[in-house]
Amino acid sequence: MPRSSDFKPSKVVLAYSGGLDTSIILKWLQTEYGAEVVTFTADLGQGEELAPAREKALKLGLKPENIFIDDLREEFVRDYVFPMFRANALYEGQYLLGTSIARPLIAKRQIEIARQVGADAVCHGATGKGNDQVRFELGYYALEPDIHVIAPWREWDFRSREALLAFAEAHQIPISKDKRGEAPFSVDANLLHSSSEGKVLEDPAVAAPEFVHQRTLSPQDAPDRVTEITIEFQHGDPVAIDGEAMSPATLLTKLNRLGHDNGIGRLDLVENRFVGMKSRGVYETPGGTILLAAHRGIESITLDRGAMHLKDELMPKYASLIYNGFWFSPEREMLQAAIDKSQEKVAGTVRVRLYKGNVTVVGRESPHSLYDQELVTFEEGAVAYDHRDAEGFIKLNALRLRVLAKRDRRA
Amino acid sequence: MPRSSDFKPSKVVLAYSGGLDTSIILKWLQTEYGAEVVTFTADLGQGEELAPAREKALKLGLKPENIFIDDLREEFVRDYVFPMFRANALYEGQYLLGTSIARPLIAKRQIEIARQVGADAVCHGATGKGNDQVRFELGYYALEPDIHVIAPWREWDFRSREALLAFAEAHQIPISKDKRGEAPFSVDANLLHSSSEGKVLEDPAVAAPEFVHQRTLSPQDAPDRVTEITIEFQHGDPVAIDGEAMSPATLLTKLNRLGHDNGIGRLDLVENRFVGMKSRGVYETPGGTILLAAHRGIESITLDRGAMHLKDELMPKYASLIYNGFWFSPEREMLQAAIDKSQEKVAGTVRVRLYKGNVTVVGRESPHSLYDQELVTFEEGAVAYDHRDAEGFIKLNALRLRVLAKRDRRA
Amino acid sequence: MPRSSDFKPSKVVLAYSGGLDTSIILKWLQTEYGAEVVTFTADLGQGEELAPAREKALKLGLKPENIFIDDLREEFVRDYVFPMFRANALYEGQYLLGTSIARPLIAKRQIEIARQVGADAVCHGATGKGNDQVRFELGYYALEPDIHVIAPWREWDFRSREALLAFAEAHQIPISKDKRGEAPFSVDANLLHSSSEGKVLEDPAVAAPEFVHQRTLSPQDAPDRVTEITIEFQHGDPVAIDGEAMSPATLLTKLNRLGHDNGIGRLDLVENRFVGMKSRGVYETPGGTILLAAHRGIESITLDRGAMHLKDELMPKYASLIYNGFWFSPEREMLQAAIDKSQEKVAGTVRVRLYKGNVTVVGRESPHSLYDQELVTFEEGAVAYDHRDAEGFIKLNALRLRVLAKRDRRA
Amino acid sequence: MPRSSDFKPSKVVLAYSGGLDTSIILKWLQTEYGAEVVTFTADLGQGEELAPAREKALKLGLKPENIFIDDLREEFVRDYVFPMFRANALYEGQYLLGTSIARPLIAKRQIEIARQVGADAVCHGATGKGNDQVRFELGYYALEPDIHVIAPWREWDFRSREALLAFAEAHQIPISKDKRGEAPFSVDANLLHSSSEGKVLEDPAVAAPEFVHQRTLSPQDAPDRVTEITIEFQHGDPVAIDGEAMSPATLLTKLNRLGHDNGIGRLDLVENRFVGMKSRGVYETPGGTILLAAHRGIESITLDRGAMHLKDELMPKYASLIYNGFWFSPEREMLQAAIDKSQEKVAGTVRVRLYKGNVTVVGRESPHSLYDQELVTFEEGAVAYDHRDAEGFIKLNALRLRVLAKRDRRA
Repeated sequence: MPRSSDFKPSKVVLAYSGGLDTSIILKWLQTEYGAEVVTFTADLGQGEELAPAREKALKLGLKPENIFIDDLREEFVRDYVFPMFRANALYEGQYLLGTSIARPLIAKRQIEIARQVGADAVCHGATGKGNDQVRFELGYYALEPDIHVIAPWREWDFRSREALLAFAEAHQIPISKDKRGEAPFSVDANLLHSSSEGKVLEDPAVAAPEFVHQRTLSPQDAPDRVTEITIEFQHGDPVAIDGEAMSPATLLTKLNRLGHDNGIGRLDLVENRFVGMKSRGVYETPGGTILLAAHRGIESITLDRGAMHLKDELMPKYASLIYNGFWFSPEREMLQAAIDKSQEKVAGTVRVRLYKGNVTVVGRESPHSLYDQELVTFEEGAVAYDHRDAEGFIKLNALRLRVLAKRDRRA
Repeated sequence: MPRSSDFKPSKVVLAYSGGLDTSIILKWLQTEYGAEVVTFTADLGQGEELAPAREKALKLGLKPENIFIDDLREEFVRDYVFPMFRANALYEGQYLLGTSIARPLIAKRQIEIARQVGADAVCHGATGKGNDQVRFELGYYALEPDIHVIAPWREWDFRSREALLAFAEAHQIPISKDKRGEAPFSVDANLLHSSSEGKVLEDPAVAAPEFVHQRTLSPQDAPDRVTEITIEFQHGDPVAIDGEAMSPATLLTKLNRLGHDNGIGRLDLVENRFVGMKSRGVYETPGGTILLAAHRGIESITLDRGAMHLKDELMPKYASLIYNGFWFSPEREMLQAAIDKSQEKVAGTVRVRLYKGNVTVVGRESPHSLYDQELVTFEEGAVAYDHRDAEGFIKLNALRLRVLAKRDRRA
Repeated sequence: MPRSSDFKPSKVVLAYSGGLDTSIILKWLQTEYGAEVVTFTADLGQGEELAPAREKALKLGLKPENIFIDDLREEFVRDYVFPMFRANALYEGQYLLGTSIARPLIAKRQIEIARQVGADAVCHGATGKGNDQVRFELGYYALEPDIHVIAPWREWDFRSREALLAFAEAHQIPISKDKRGEAPFSVDANLLHSSSEGKVLEDPAVAAPEFVHQRTLSPQDAPDRVTEITIEFQHGDPVAIDGEAMSPATLLTKLNRLGHDNGIGRLDLVENRFVGMKSRGVYETPGGTILLAAHRGIESITLDRGAMHLKDELMPKYASLIYNGFWFSPEREMLQAAIDKSQEKVAGTVRVRLYKGNVTVVGRESPHSLYDQELVTFEEGAVAYDHRDAEGFIKLNALRLRVLAKRDRRA
Repeated sequence: MPRSSDFKPSKVVLAYSGGLDTSIILKWLQTEYGAEVVTFTADLGQGEELAPAREKALKLGLKPENIFIDDLREEFVRDYVFPMFRANALYEGQYLLGTSIARPLIAKRQIEIARQVGADAVCHGATGKGNDQVRFELGYYALEPDIHVIAPWREWDFRSREALLAFAEAHQIPISKDKRGEAPFSVDANLLHSSSEGKVLEDPAVAAPEFVHQRTLSPQDAPDRVTEITIEFQHGDPVAIDGEAMSPATLLTKLNRLGHDNGIGRLDLVENRFVGMKSRGVYETPGGTILLAAHRGIESITLDRGAMHLKDELMPKYASLIYNGFWFSPEREMLQAAIDKSQEKVAGTVRVRLYKGNVTVVGRESPHSLYDQELVTFEEGAVAYDHRDAEGFIKLNALRLRVLAKRDRRA
């Protein structure tokens, strides 16, 4: 395959938000490459109207059949978010991977459209210093190995914001007032989370200003009363809130609302990007934060120790794979197979209290519970625990340590 | 070594709290074995006066030279708690190991005393169903492989609380009123945490009553205002709060106070015991919860990605080793060597906000920072990042996935 | 469940080899417990006739319907040996787990028979210091949690070989001459391997005598010529040798013959037992040694790097689980799910040379090959490799190391 | 830092073998960049005379003070090879990393020379498709983050072997006859191993021809007699053969001779390169193969189970780090700290038999042995093993499996 810069695509599927940047890219693809552009706009729950994206694409000269707008919210939550939460995935111990998990689905759908319309290239608007370019492109290549990828931010010659805006004006792309100056921070959002990074957040010693938050009240602003809910699980996935069954996206939307109102799910983090530098972001994952706690809660009574500890050992690698863009990789699929195997009996109901930023599991019950009240009670019960067994258990666990101690004393 | 029950010790070092249970054990050792008893009472920050323990031991007939009372708070925090926090250790994703980490130090000191007084046995008051018996005894055996261990709860014939109390009365051991009935829950405490388990907590579906908490205000009861502090680190350990240098125990005590006041560090957990069953506990680790967040915070700007991810992968095993009682084991020491190696430059200051149960890192700075503002800013700087590098990086990371996709299409 | 020694079983399923030791156990169960004994004798390819076992059981008074003799060779290889070889499992880097992998199948079948005949206990002849007692009993308990287990070697009062023989004579159990004295070593055998341990092998400084080997010629005695074979794989399992399709047990038998003749598969090892001590064994795994090499060979061209490295990282834990007796555990099943997922396209043919102890893979081909000759040739091909990509790949991989070096220089 | 192609170095340190390719590079640096070239030629035990390298460099116009020739054999073995063997490192289960481990040392010395002579760039002769470019450059950047790297094979315009040769002739670089045509395979060699890859080895289905081997007799050609040696270890490193103490490089040289003569250490492997494709190589590591077996042997009696299993779990990652070029990385150093910690008492003598490709450990003894003959003998000894302990050990290990089985039956 030739270097992308040498390649002239005839038809390109662009991941298109309808915003200024991807509108410039759209125009640039037309002018720079003379390519027919197909736009793909996904509703992943980012909370924006999609109709304007269609309008703008039409105005930029696209044929109606070249405009794809899909509501992927249910697929997103069911096939990406929930499988990931089965693993209790946290990147670097803290980050719920809200941006990372959306990229593979966008890439997948873009490739599907490329096949459908006979496009020979795909294009995204991620910058050249971030993780998202990697996530998009690894997805593209894994699904369609000969596809051509156009990454304008790495290719074009605009050297400043001004040059970009000049190009926009020259091509009649409307620029809203707030886009004139440089944004104080940039945002990514979907049904799982929103993230903010850049400019006002760049000094990690300085607290994030309140105005970067979009998805959550601050704990201080949240009401001073406890909200208690129950979440029901089947096969490791949440299926109902307070007894009401819901589809995956509906359920996550509901949790987001609860999280928002109670000031839950904020994270101010300096993380390590796959491309090699550290960056600082502010994440808000209201529903996901509740979900992680509740999932750990239902696992705590339904998952065997061996399974739980193996999951905990595998998790950091699993989270890194998703963060780094390797969702569509054999090793992620192997780990998923192991994790899914563990979730067969992870079912039941968790009671959770929400209060000013706190998520507290206060009760869990399950028809598949492994918690055995008789086993732990003080009095010996009918059940299988003989105090004398503990002596043998300890003695044989200690044996190698005793041999070692004798050796070390001797030598 | 003969089975302990066949063995008649001549001198026994007993881990003695001064409470009813260990007083009964003391007397039982005297009557059952005719052994000379040496008591060891440690101040690990559990918050109880130690003078009464001496009084009681004297009353039970011990010679003054057979009564050991040590303030181990500094050693505990410096050599056990802080090394563990360098690893960000969490058992089963949540538990800060407050009980587990105290046991090896008690075992070590008991063995030292046994050597000093020429005792041929050690004794502890842990029950036959818990983890603590394992932790004590693995510690004893690892340090003194031929020591005899007496575990009364696994050995004696008392079959009920009543039988125990009758024995106490028969031997003039004073029984305070509240010990007459069965305790609604049992407590373990030290400078790192307090834990509650048993009776009123036995049904994991039922919320823990407020009265089991001892170390923390509830978030609801905590004041409605933010407390902001800074914590300074050196070599991965905290050394100062708000610019004031403190000894390890003093610092943890201060953090505990801050945590208490702000409703921080409560955990209601169903966990997997090493001896094989699930149990439910309520933990309060106010200072430790703040410390974990702050340590992650300082690591986030001073630790390289490779080091951090390796630490995260090793952590679950490290935590399990401590939980299971293998502090004095070659594999824990190997992991500690790796972890300590990583902490050489983990130094700097973290700014933390405390508010009604929330610990939020809002700023971090360090003379050893790896965060490079120039690298992440939008505009290309003088520094080593060329956007075009990303293309090659992605292409070679994608190569195997593309070969795979072609293969799978072919076959 | 009461301590087994307090329990009087009415019907016991005994894992019965027909040898002296298990015949004594059979009689001891009858006399000690007054229990009805059901024998189970499995053909796992140990190379002994099973008819005598039936004869002896009848002579010891068993009813014909209480004698179970099963040929489990195909099930053993198909459902236990091959799945394990998919993982390239080696315990402590060297041991092919020949004994360990047979125990769960015996346990499973014993439990099935117990259910069928309505027995309330099972019994095995493993000693109290070995791993096999653990493997049998974990299998029993995992499959039938309330079963009673009788482990005569841990229970009875015979304190010497003489006492045992006296009991045998008293009960008319025939004792062959060579069983009078103490055996110079003990043997376990099945279709995968044979192991020898004990007496003549007890000093790990002294070489194992030639006469302990049973399954293989020594490399010195093997013929001085190369034997070349091909092994064909499907889904990670071998299915044909030299183009001839074979059932699992037939195939392993054939490989054993080839290995035997060419002096392949001997191992003299000091290993760590689960019960805490080191022991020295001599293992012969002729066919398995060939199979491991061939499986690695076919994986080398059909398995993606990510999958292979993940497998390699999981392997030590997987091997330990099998060694320790946790075949029937959730964590082994999780790992198996991951491993099996990786084997879907592990298919093709491996050419192997056998010569005086050496197994050398000299060729591999596959319809699912990921090896791409064009990618590695010197000249740039039509394919997806641009030398310039390497620069970017290296630069971004180096980025964090450069930032680190600058930091360390600065500080 | 600007893209290397835009940069004009004034002084370059070139890793120079004296062969045709690096001589062309030398001249190309002079003509293309007008740079002053400094050559560095290392004796790593590759078995070539270094004097001709000096002659050639002088002929190509270098000043004598710009020619560095160092004997690094002892440093190589002591500080790179032996630390790696402490880990029993095998890449993809088989490869002893002979090429990988030499690169960091070359990179380190090149950087030292660059500092000494005030050079602003370094240059290597590795191609754009291999691992070595990565290993060299990660080493350079980790040690000297602002260094400029010149990788001629990725940069120059020669598009064929002919063009290269024409350049050589035009600049009076002598071309030996056998370099006229294309080499049937390429070789890398040092004191640890030699590797062959390319052309005649490119079809992985075809056996490697005998003539690619350089370091070892074939097993068939090796003498038909057993050679028995002893190897003595201290702190995990070999220090003597047959009782004779030797320096690291002397010892490895001696093992290489023994391995060569006995047909030991050949490997024909398809491996996964870090840059993303599979490649096939033939490796010969005669002394290293003996060393690995002997090191495992001495560890088997001196290393505790916990330490050994942890080492085995960490090994694949450690090996990948070295293979991928991350010797100078925090995570490799963390793992090394853990590994080195484990080797403190790995000392003693291993007896090894060498015979026609086989390395067999037949005896091991150590003043620090953990093997306890009394513990494993049949009769119960004075020592710490009570058969009854096994029952408790098994019961508590089984407990969670039993609870699980009851749950699964219930549900």
